[in-house]
Amino acid sequence: MNTLPRSITLNFRSDNVGTVSPEILRAVEAANRDPAASYGDDQYSAAVNRAFSTLFETEVAVFPVATGTAANALSLSCCARPWGAIYCHQEAHVHTSEAGATEFYSGGAKLLALPGADYQLDPATLRETLATAERGIRNRSQPDAVTITQATEYGTVYRLDGIAAIGAIARDAGLRFHMDGARFANALAKLDCTPADMTWRRGVDILSFGATKNGGMNADAIVVFDPDLVEPLSYRLRRAGQTWSKMRFAAAQLLAYVEDGLYLRLARRANALAARIGRELGALPGVELVAPVDANMLFVRMPDRAIEAIAAAGARYGRRRGGVIRLVTRFDMDEAEAEILLELVRGALD
Amino acid sequence: MNTLPRSITLNFRSDNVGTVSPEILRAVEAANRDPAASYGDDQYSAAVNRAFSTLFETEVAVFPVATGTAANALSLSCCARPWGAIYCHQEAHVHTSEAGATEFYSGGAKLLALPGADYQLDPATLRETLATAERGIRNRSQPDAVTITQATEYGTVYRLDGIAAIGAIARDAGLRFHMDGARFANALAKLDCTPADMTWRRGVDILSFGATKNGGMNADAIVVFDPDLVEPLSYRLRRAGQTWSKMRFAAAQLLAYVEDGLYLRLARRANALAARIGRELGALPGVELVAPVDANMLFVRMPDRAIEAIAAAGARYGRRRGGVIRLVTRFDMDEAEAEILLELVRGALD
Amino acid sequence: MNTLPRSITLNFRSDNVGTVSPEILRAVEAANRDPAASYGDDQYSAAVNRAFSTLFETEVAVFPVATGTAANALSLSCCARPWGAIYCHQEAHVHTSEAGATEFYSGGAKLLALPGADYQLDPATLRETLATAERGIRNRSQPDAVTITQATEYGTVYRLDGIAAIGAIARDAGLRFHMDGARFANALAKLDCTPADMTWRRGVDILSFGATKNGGMNADAIVVFDPDLVEPLSYRLRRAGQTWSKMRFAAAQLLAYVEDGLYLRLARRANALAARIGRELGALPGVELVAPVDANMLFVRMPDRAIEAIAAAGARYGRRRGGVIRLVTRFDMDEAEAEILLELVRGALD
Amino acid sequence: MNTLPRSITLNFRSDNVGTVSPEILRAVEAANRDPAASYGDDQYSAAVNRAFSTLFETEVAVFPVATGTAANALSLSCCARPWGAIYCHQEAHVHTSEAGATEFYSGGAKLLALPGADYQLDPATLRETLATAERGIRNRSQPDAVTITQATEYGTVYRLDGIAAIGAIARDAGLRFHMDGARFANALAKLDCTPADMTWRRGVDILSFGATKNGGMNADAIVVFDPDLVEPLSYRLRRAGQTWSKMRFAAAQLLAYVEDGLYLRLARRANALAARIGRELGALPGVELVAPVDANMLFVRMPDRAIEAIAAAGARYGRRRGGVIRLVTRFDMDEAEAEILLELVRGALD
Repeated sequence: MNTLPRSITLNFRSDNVGTVSPEILRAVEAANRDPAASYGDDQYSAAVNRAFSTLFETEVAVFPVATGTAANALSLSCCARPWGAIYCHQEAHVHTSEAGATEFYSGGAKLLALPGADYQLDPATLRETLATAERGIRNRSQPDAVTITQATEYGTVYRLDGIAAIGAIARDAGLRFHMDGARFANALAKLDCTPADMTWRRGVDILSFGATKNGGMNADAIVVFDPDLVEPLSYRLRRAGQTWSKMRFAAAQLLAYVEDGLYLRLARRANALAARIGRELGALPGVELVAPVDANMLFVRMPDRAIEAIAAAGARYGRRRGGVIRLVTRFDMDEAEAEILLELVRGALD
Repeated sequence: MNTLPRSITLNFRSDNVGTVSPEILRAVEAANRDPAASYGDDQYSAAVNRAFSTLFETEVAVFPVATGTAANALSLSCCARPWGAIYCHQEAHVHTSEAGATEFYSGGAKLLALPGADYQLDPATLRETLATAERGIRNRSQPDAVTITQATEYGTVYRLDGIAAIGAIARDAGLRFHMDGARFANALAKLDCTPADMTWRRGVDILSFGATKNGGMNADAIVVFDPDLVEPLSYRLRRAGQTWSKMRFAAAQLLAYVEDGLYLRLARRANALAARIGRELGALPGVELVAPVDANMLFVRMPDRAIEAIAAAGARYGRRRGGVIRLVTRFDMDEAEAEILLELVRGALD
Repeated sequence: MNTLPRSITLNFRSDNVGTVSPEILRAVEAANRDPAASYGDDQYSAAVNRAFSTLFETEVAVFPVATGTAANALSLSCCARPWGAIYCHQEAHVHTSEAGATEFYSGGAKLLALPGADYQLDPATLRETLATAERGIRNRSQPDAVTITQATEYGTVYRLDGIAAIGAIARDAGLRFHMDGARFANALAKLDCTPADMTWRRGVDILSFGATKNGGMNADAIVVFDPDLVEPLSYRLRRAGQTWSKMRFAAAQLLAYVEDGLYLRLARRANALAARIGRELGALPGVELVAPVDANMLFVRMPDRAIEAIAAAGARYGRRRGGVIRLVTRFDMDEAEAEILLELVRGALD
Repeated sequence: MNTLPRSITLNFRSDNVGTVSPEILRAVEAANRDPAASYGDDQYSAAVNRAFSTLFETEVAVFPVATGTAANALSLSCCARPWGAIYCHQEAHVHTSEAGATEFYSGGAKLLALPGADYQLDPATLRETLATAERGIRNRSQPDAVTITQATEYGTVYRLDGIAAIGAIARDAGLRFHMDGARFANALAKLDCTPADMTWRRGVDILSFGATKNGGMNADAIVVFDPDLVEPLSYRLRRAGQTWSKMRFAAAQLLAYVEDGLYLRLARRANALAARIGRELGALPGVELVAPVDANMLFVRMPDRAIEAIAAAGARYGRRRGGVIRLVTRFDMDEAEAEILLELVRGALD
């Protein structure tokens, strides 16, 4: 079992270990014919804005960026004043895993982390928290924004009414509403709705649109629904060193990513693998799914001997406290890898 | 003359309008075989560190970044305390063209801009300025760093003794020495020395190593000679959203860029075109080269009718005040483009 | 009952509504004889450093500042790197009531708020949290500092072994240890120990030394035990606009404040009043003390009719959720005010 | 001559070595009768807003602050976006002597320093510079504000038409106009106009109103003419730790300072002494006034033996390069001190 066939790597560590979807790579090559205007004045960048405006059924501005951290922190820096408060779930990536990027880019805004079942921000909790925020009191961080992660850091997916509830609270309270869509496609594939339905129609003002984890190469994007945010964001991005001179090579990736629904096909494949693994693992005695498997991630509590067995076979995965492991599936993962994994666990638990 | 053949674009606006060198594009494709560890723990990133350590004849740490602005501002943020002063030439890109990125990333350090002939920082001016810096006086920005651009923003190239003179002043004054090498290869090609000779052997502590302008796609790099800067820089980069999860696609570009001296071959081609244009333009009556043509940029003062002629032919170039235009050459530029340009000017001046 | 005698104001809202102790006011006047050197080079500032070094039984550096927020945020900005984490209790003033000052001054460090009984940071919780901090992982805020408030925001006082336990954890984990001593004197009066015993002997590196709430006029201080923090702090203060040119008028206040133990006499008076009110209120049916009354603050849950009665009489107090009010006593408060308050509550509950 | 009488200190180093005007000290004492609301909700703070609104003949908001650096940097942080440019004279205190406070508080805005005769910003230079600012270009700091110092750092005073010219440029260019009035009273005394005429009637939006250098104790103020700046400034001040809880002791100083024109009487006295010294020194052979003596500062080039003579007598003064000394006069300076100084110089030059 230790000697795996060549392309079977059993690498469930993260979706960012994956390859680039061939369509995207070809688009990058195709963008290399002639010289082109720089800093986003090229035809590919214009096409991205048109394509995403069509995709989202509304006029949007799209800013390619190097990473999801940049997308999140720079988006939020336009949503909160330096003395503002930004509400998020306590497991939000922006709070736990970006080394203070939002505090830095915003000039000192505070992320206020709230609890919530299924790793989702609870509208009721948000409403109660806002009710106690002391607006106008100069020594209190002032409510400015709310951010949710869709799909969440634990692979659960907000339902549309949940997003709408948060959107309504945000609107009533004068908060900007940001969505961290590092796994936007996986969530959309789960809900089987339109991008518009999952975002601005539910009140989202600005979106971190992830591509890298789902077959992209090295560009994510910020999609701006609220036109007031466009100008300040454009300056902040340039100053942050997030505006590529040869922007067309990022734009080409994003164009290919959404063309003909590629992003959904890739996400559906990853989701399906996760669902299958979850279904089969969850049926085993002594194995427990810590969170519903809505997208392409599984958090599984299982006996040590099962964890040891897959580790011994060379599998990679994320480790969490309390005997929980994280498994992430990808579009470029072989069905066989899922089967080998399941077999290893079953064998260990026999 | 208005109808140019397909690939003759007469685009002299900037080197960042150029294409990606085929070798680099192939390297990106080749890096896409299997899954790989993320955030720089992959084999390509390890190879970049080895390759650059060999290239620079000393142990270096290499951090790929999205843009030159990120490279400069994040490098300098490790060189200056928030209340520090950073000395630069008054035409330095970090001072004029990065929208305050260094002030932002450093938490408020000041760029103090100095005059200097040929758009180069003058060692004597730097020494005199430092002599009047009031060290230890709490309301004065404290001397912390010096930065030079090689090649400069006007296409001139510091000679080795000039770099050494600044390096010696920096060492004596306890300043960190940063080099903005957005056009590192063009400068190196001009001086025909080793990378080590142009950098750390002359006192440089940290280098913005440009690749994008010279055939790269979307990655430049920070090359760190001073090991004390490595850890803080690594945190700052991640927090800035400059650490790609799929780092191998940046690493692969940089590997290909330096392999077998590709970067020098590309730069030499661009430099040669610029030299030729400079030589021939400079010989025309009423045409004046504003700065020596050391690298791949020309700043030319010429009569309006000449400027109008090339504009009418569809040529692109940068406009400066006082009848000066900027022309930039590239590795992927056809010799015919130079000839057409020269012919247009000659025709207008007849 | 509505018409109060002139100087009976029944103002229990906060200790910062109080007057300046006459000794301190006289000291300010006495400092006004002759011209004096500015920015802390005067004899009063020198005397403060000597007096506090004697008081704390070790060489300290003292920096007068305008407010407690400045003292806290600027102290912490020297203790944490911009990508650092600072651990505090979830009710810490730095976290809840300084509008993001610490995030701002530190350039983006995160305050990580922890639960704890009696509004005190629990050493066990701190230790467990540190055990899960992922050191060296570039996307995690790195453990850099811990801060406690003594006395706490709810008027409880850490015992010496509690401080020592946190100090030991901080030392082992390489954290700087900051104490927010906005009510330092009240805590010290409660513990009846030496200033050294409550601070550096228990591991405290830097102290926000409050004076304003306890009879000062408009100066608090930062007391630095760790000499490495002195230089960066001095630059940060000047740049923050916290270094008075006529520093002697702040220094004179601080000198008088500690001379002959004035600060302790003032605090003891306030504490005694709070203790008496707490004892008597706590004995009434339907009245509950939310937190132990260790210093000069009471948090009391009582029936609405009692709250209404004191409000109707013109008393001022802080309101909290759930029928809880905050009462703060001061050195300049008349014993009669306490008696009137008690009588009002007793009357309402009869 | 070495043994000076008691109160003859010959201290010409700076106006901030001076004493507090007795009227101001008495006002501080008088504010100490009863408890008062904190953080500016007291009657003294309300009275300051009324008094200054009367004084400036328009509704203003007044924010007392600890220092002039805080006044300047926090004012400017409300006038410029983080990617903004602020134009100032190259000798402006905000640029040379505040350790990057403006860059820090603004989150990275750039101070662009311009030359100008008599240490004053030249309207023509400002206009030309603005004409070359590349608005909308994302890598250029965007024109947001202009700041002048009145009286300047070299004791010269802008005439009303000069202020109006800058105000008109600012209005046309959409810039906020800030005045650093560290020596506001000295300038006003020189021009003998109304405060309104020297500020908002000439286009000034926000004013650093100095008091400390002219008989105040430890409070300056920000006077806001543009109502849009009030709210953001109030949050920034609190977060900066510049909002005293016992605000009445700052408010009382400012009230006394302007009551019955005290501030002008104090300034006139200082100005008259400077004028006399300037007149008499300027008439001596080999002595040269470097700048016109408009306010209470003299910059004098004189032979070394004259400088040595006053130093030997124990006089204090500021030293500049090139044999220039700075002499500052104050309201609390004895006429005899001026005479002694003059005699010393005359004696040395005989």
